Amino acid sequence: MKLVIVGGVAGGASAAARARRLDESAEIILLERGPDVSFANCGMPYYIGQQIVDRKRLLVVTPERLRERLNLDVRPQTEAIAIDRAKKQLRVRNLANDEEYDLTYDKLILAPGASPFRPAVPGFDLLRVMTLRNLSDMDRIAAASSAAKHVVVMGAGFIGLEMIENLVHRGISCTLVQNQSQVLSPLDAEMTTPLAEELVKRGVDLALSDSATSIETVESTGRMRVQLQSGREVETDLVVVGIGVRPENQLAIAAGLALGDRGGIAVNEAMQTSDPDIYAVGDVVETRDVVSGVKQLMPLAGPANRQGRIAADHLFGRPAKFRGTQATAIVGLWKLTAAMTGLSEKVCRLRNIPFCAVYIHPAHHATYYPGAEPMSLKVLFDPTSGRILGAQGVGGAGVDKRIDILSIAIQSKMTVFDLEEAELCYAPQFGSAKDPINMVGFVAAGMLRGDHPQIDVRELLAMDPSVRPLVLDVRTSEEFAAGHLPGAISISVDQLRGRLSELDPTRKIAAYCQVGQRGYFATRILLQHGFDVVNVSGGYKTYLLHFPAGYSANAS
Amino acid sequence: MKLVIVGGVAGGASAAARARRLDESAEIILLERGPDVSFANCGMPYYIGQQIVDRKRLLVVTPERLRERLNLDVRPQTEAIAIDRAKKQLRVRNLANDEEYDLTYDKLILAPGASPFRPAVPGFDLLRVMTLRNLSDMDRIAAASSAAKHVVVMGAGFIGLEMIENLVHRGISCTLVQNQSQVLSPLDAEMTTPLAEELVKRGVDLALSDSATSIETVESTGRMRVQLQSGREVETDLVVVGIGVRPENQLAIAAGLALGDRGGIAVNEAMQTSDPDIYAVGDVVETRDVVSGVKQLMPLAGPANRQGRIAADHLFGRPAKFRGTQATAIVGLWKLTAAMTGLSEKVCRLRNIPFCAVYIHPAHHATYYPGAEPMSLKVLFDPTSGRILGAQGVGGAGVDKRIDILSIAIQSKMTVFDLEEAELCYAPQFGSAKDPINMVGFVAAGMLRGDHPQIDVRELLAMDPSVRPLVLDVRTSEEFAAGHLPGAISISVDQLRGRLSELDPTRKIAAYCQVGQRGYFATRILLQHGFDVVNVSGGYKTYLLHFPAGYSANAS
Ligand SMILES: Cc1cc2nc3c(=O)[nH]c(=O)nc-3n(C[C@H](O)[C@H](O)[C@H](O)COP(=O)(O)OP(=O)(O)OC[C@H]3O[C@@H](n4cnc5c(N)ncnc54)[C@H](O)[C@@H]3O)c2cc1C
Ligand SMILES: Cc1cc2nc3c(=O)[nH]c(=O)nc-3n(C[C@H](O)[C@H](O)[C@H](O)COP(=O)(O)OP(=O)(O)OC[C@H]3O[C@@H](n4cnc5c(N)ncnc54)[C@H](O)[C@@H]3O)c2cc1C
Ligand SMILES: CC(C)(COP(=O)(O)OP(=O)(O)OC[C@H]1O[C@@H](n2cnc3c(N)ncnc32)[C@H](O)[C@@H]1OP(=O)(O)O)[C@@H](O)C(=O)NCCC(=O)NCCS
Ligand SMILES: CC(C)(COP(=O)(O)OP(=O)(O)OC[C@H]1O[C@@H](n2cnc3c(N)ncnc32)[C@H](O)[C@@H]1OP(=O)(O)O)[C@@H](O)C(=O)NCCC(=O)NCCS
Repeated sequence: MKLVIVGGVAGGASAAARARRLDESAEIILLERGPDVSFANCGMPYYIGQQIVDRKRLLVVTPERLRERLNLDVRPQTEAIAIDRAKKQLRVRNLANDEEYDLTYDKLILAPGASPFRPAVPGFDLLRVMTLRNLSDMDRIAAASSAAKHVVVMGAGFIGLEMIENLVHRGISCTLVQNQSQVLSPLDAEMTTPLAEELVKRGVDLALSDSATSIETVESTGRMRVQLQSGREVETDLVVVGIGVRPENQLAIAAGLALGDRGGIAVNEAMQTSDPDIYAVGDVVETRDVVSGVKQLMPLAGPANRQGRIAADHLFGRPAKFRGTQATAIVGLWKLTAAMTGLSEKVCRLRNIPFCAVYIHPAHHATYYPGAEPMSLKVLFDPTSGRILGAQGVGGAGVDKRIDILSIAIQSKMTVFDLEEAELCYAPQFGSAKDPINMVGFVAAGMLRGDHPQIDVRELLAMDPSVRPLVLDVRTSEEFAAGHLPGAISISVDQLRGRLSELDPTRKIAAYCQVGQRGYFATRILLQHGFDVVNVSGGYKTYLLHFPAGYSANAS
Repeated sequence: MKLVIVGGVAGGASAAARARRLDESAEIILLERGPDVSFANCGMPYYIGQQIVDRKRLLVVTPERLRERLNLDVRPQTEAIAIDRAKKQLRVRNLANDEEYDLTYDKLILAPGASPFRPAVPGFDLLRVMTLRNLSDMDRIAAASSAAKHVVVMGAGFIGLEMIENLVHRGISCTLVQNQSQVLSPLDAEMTTPLAEELVKRGVDLALSDSATSIETVESTGRMRVQLQSGREVETDLVVVGIGVRPENQLAIAAGLALGDRGGIAVNEAMQTSDPDIYAVGDVVETRDVVSGVKQLMPLAGPANRQGRIAADHLFGRPAKFRGTQATAIVGLWKLTAAMTGLSEKVCRLRNIPFCAVYIHPAHHATYYPGAEPMSLKVLFDPTSGRILGAQGVGGAGVDKRIDILSIAIQSKMTVFDLEEAELCYAPQFGSAKDPINMVGFVAAGMLRGDHPQIDVRELLAMDPSVRPLVLDVRTSEEFAAGHLPGAISISVDQLRGRLSELDPTRKIAAYCQVGQRGYFATRILLQHGFDVVNVSGGYKTYLLHFPAGYSANAS
């Protein structure tokens, strides 16, 4: 078996390593255009931010190690430039000496990844407008950062946010330009409110719903001037562009391999392209979303690594199948964590997938034990079966744990009823006797069983005041005084049983509290006294996520 | 509906709260022998250790709050002393004034919990020999600790370990007496080695395989002398006994309710006792282990809370069922965490349940990012189907996350093959592109597929040297020199392909490395060159767990 792999990092190196374990005698050639293989792409922002100080740590495995330990024929600085499928042969260029040669293969794995998108806007080709994909890019940005007083980061996705944290960590002023009205667009807008607030609190100049239209050098200062759509101009020393990546599909297109709708290489469950002797893995392929069944690009390291392993398995005759992806992703922003898995509300709406949603705002462990950190969780589920469709979390410690648990729950097709019964580790430093995961189950199952009718605060506020239910704040009068929903009246849940006569029994009521729990208790009381009542899901805290005080970019 | 509940803490108060939400008009009477209801039992050790400083924080909910918010008839200092099932009536004593009265019920829930076991040994009735169950106990221990220079803790279970951490935190010298050869007996012995090492490192006098035979007051000093089985005598100021709990089954026995084999009240899936009008929940009941199907006592707060909720559901006619327990538990010991879920190896052996086990020793997140903490995971699974049976983890941060994930995996009957495909959150602060959970899947699935034959290090070392395989250390010569398995020879994995001729092809080989990975790579090389080879599961690190250097209590 002669196996040639194009791309020597996450997907490619994983495939090569697995292939060697499966077959000692195979000839395995790993081609990599850049100087490094197997490096830690995901660590690069933290090296720029000097949180990782030893550059060598990013070289997860060196070419020498791959040769020695795995007997791989590793060829860095070597680019695959064409595939001749009929001859099962690659045209290859050694970038060190520009020599070209042909390389035959029995099986070929394409793992060329995705390249950062650069818009066709004047000035985007300037030297100090940079993207971050490999260690050379990283070195360039790190060097430019040393001299920079101000940086513009374009794009508030995962990489953009990581860049911001790290540039601020170096004491650099930053402007973050994002063409949408929210940061981190894979999440629903309200779940990103704490991130936007944190950015502002840390002094980041956050330019939402804006984008750069041109960049030019300012001769007098040697700096650059970034012209924004909004009319603003920002003078800066460095522009880092992180507005998404595009699959490196050129080789595949030239070879006539089938692509998917999103421009990624089309593969079957075994990671085979339309040519069964050619596999493709990682950022370059489209994968099936396990929840919706839709094909998508999912440029993440975990899937790339596992796909590489599966391609190697399959080409050696094993019945391996990739189960698809479910958009499980996470980002740290100083002490905050934002994570998601499965479908978001926007994706459900876009694809007309029926859903219910609940919000809870638990602490990450028992509140009587010091150090409990708050989080907000949003979980989407099927209105009929209760099957979990997706989850998002934002907050402090423990967000990663809850989203991972929900990711496994999605993988195993659990319902919200199963979450009611989840048995999770409990001691006061780690969780609660009823873990946030159980609480999600209780609140969601209560909704499906009809015990706990809920309304989304956006829907409530969007209703015409003439038909809008009575908005009943069941918190204490102190809490009410400190801020409440427009038009609300106040009766604390603890007084409610004695003050039912103050309520018009013919008028529908929307009860709410701070996080939803007292609102639910009030809902139960009112329901059983014959009122038509709903609880405002997630309470005042969820309202503040949707309509943040002092931060109105998300407000509709 | 007149509902009477005996016991006002985890199970009882949860049942009462849920019952009220389900039925506004029910009469709900909550009887509690002690002065407090709804308190945080699990926080008490940390109050004694002054990590929780405000005692009020332990009162999760006060009787007043339960009356106000949930309209419950809460009767603290009130003991149920007999049940007349024919009359559906309780005999009750008000402990404040010693008055007795009868209380009829339509439905009765027993949630009396479990009481700390006190052995019938001379001196165990002394005043300064204390157990910890409620806030009064806690106050007594806290007061005695203020004056104590030395404390003996009997029992190294969850509560015993928490007591030790907290007493040491107060600067008190401690002797920890444990009648088994390991601490934390629900875990397999080797997984507790780091805990024992930590205790010793923190200055705890750890007396394993020992027990107290008598305690007497030393008249001259006013201290106590604890006589141990081993012959040692320890002078101390306070003895805290945490050697397990016994279900408070007296009421149930006197009323003729059926008990299980372990002395807990027998209940069906709806938490009904042998009398369908009487439910029982919490520490007093036996529950079905979801993995083995065996009935067991599982005195933990999560199950108690959820069972209370289910009993309330069922008595109001809902089809609620408790799914059983799976022994998910956790304890913190300074910076260490130990956690488990499902079956342990000892339980599998005891019950003749076939199992395979793998060990891995991953970091809790990418090692190139600062702050990665080590952990050891042991996962048991069915040798045929690969279904996950149980898991244990010990280490630093991230142990709770992995055990919770595996708990959900057990709940949803996942196999180790499913773990290979798990899609978990990855950014370098939170995990790895191949998370420890994936690694468990890879290593275990490799074993089941026959790609990765493994041997347990105990089994290897127990073999007669005449039939024992050649023990091949594939680490570097430096690692070998620093310590290796008895009788091992050294050929580093990176040299192995070139030195195959040094190995006798007719002799079976057991390869090993530090954690198992290079040993696996070597195994793959050797297998494909025709050698009969196994990898020593978990490598040298697992050997050190079983046979800790400088700590020989576990060594067989
Ligand atoms: C800054 C940054 C941070 C990230 N953080 C995270 C994170 O926290 N979590 C996460 O899950 N993911 C993260 N990612 C994404 C993750 O790194 C990628 O999803 C993953 O590396 C994709 O693997 P791949 O093998 O498909 O592509 P890559 O790892 O990009 O490797 C492809 C390689 O192929 C080479 N190549 C391309 N074409 C050719 C050719 N014709 N001939 C030879 N070689 C070629 C390229 O030079 C490249 O090195 C991050 C990415 C970046 C850039
Ligand atoms: C120090 C300590 C630490 C713990 N830490 C943890 C932990 O970290 N994680 C975990 O999961 N679990 C922990 N637990 C266990 C957990 O607290 C129990 O599993 C849980 O409280 C059991 O709930 P229950 O309702 O069955 O019993 P309990 O909470 O004990 O409540 C029973 C109540 O019934 C009352 N009662 C008994 N008989 C009568 C009667 N005849 N009439 C009236 N009242 C009566 C008792 O006074 C008692 O207050 C810990 C326990 C202790 C003591
Ligand atoms: C305090 C105590 C009485 C509370 O009982 P409880 O009201 O059933 O439980 P919680 O306060 O956890 O609230 C859970 C309820 O609130 C609802 N809820 C929680 N968060 C919500 C939210 N954000 N929105 C709406 N409803 C919410 C849940 O649906 C659930 O109601 P349900 O059971 O009717 O579905 C009981 O747990 C107790 O006594 N605890 C202390 C003792 C103890 O557990 N000790 C051991 C551990 S230290
Ligand atoms: C470094 C790299 C080549 C390693 O590939 P790999 O050898 O397949 O992967 P790992 O080092 O994670 O090891 C996994 C293998 O070790 C085995 N293994 C892991 N722990 C083990 C243990 N304790 N005992 C025995 N075997 C073990 C696994 O079974 C698996 O082998 P298998 O696939 O044959 O089942 C590849 O992951 C890479 O290039 N990574 C860097 C690039 C990257 O991922 N970037 C994005 C993230 S920053």
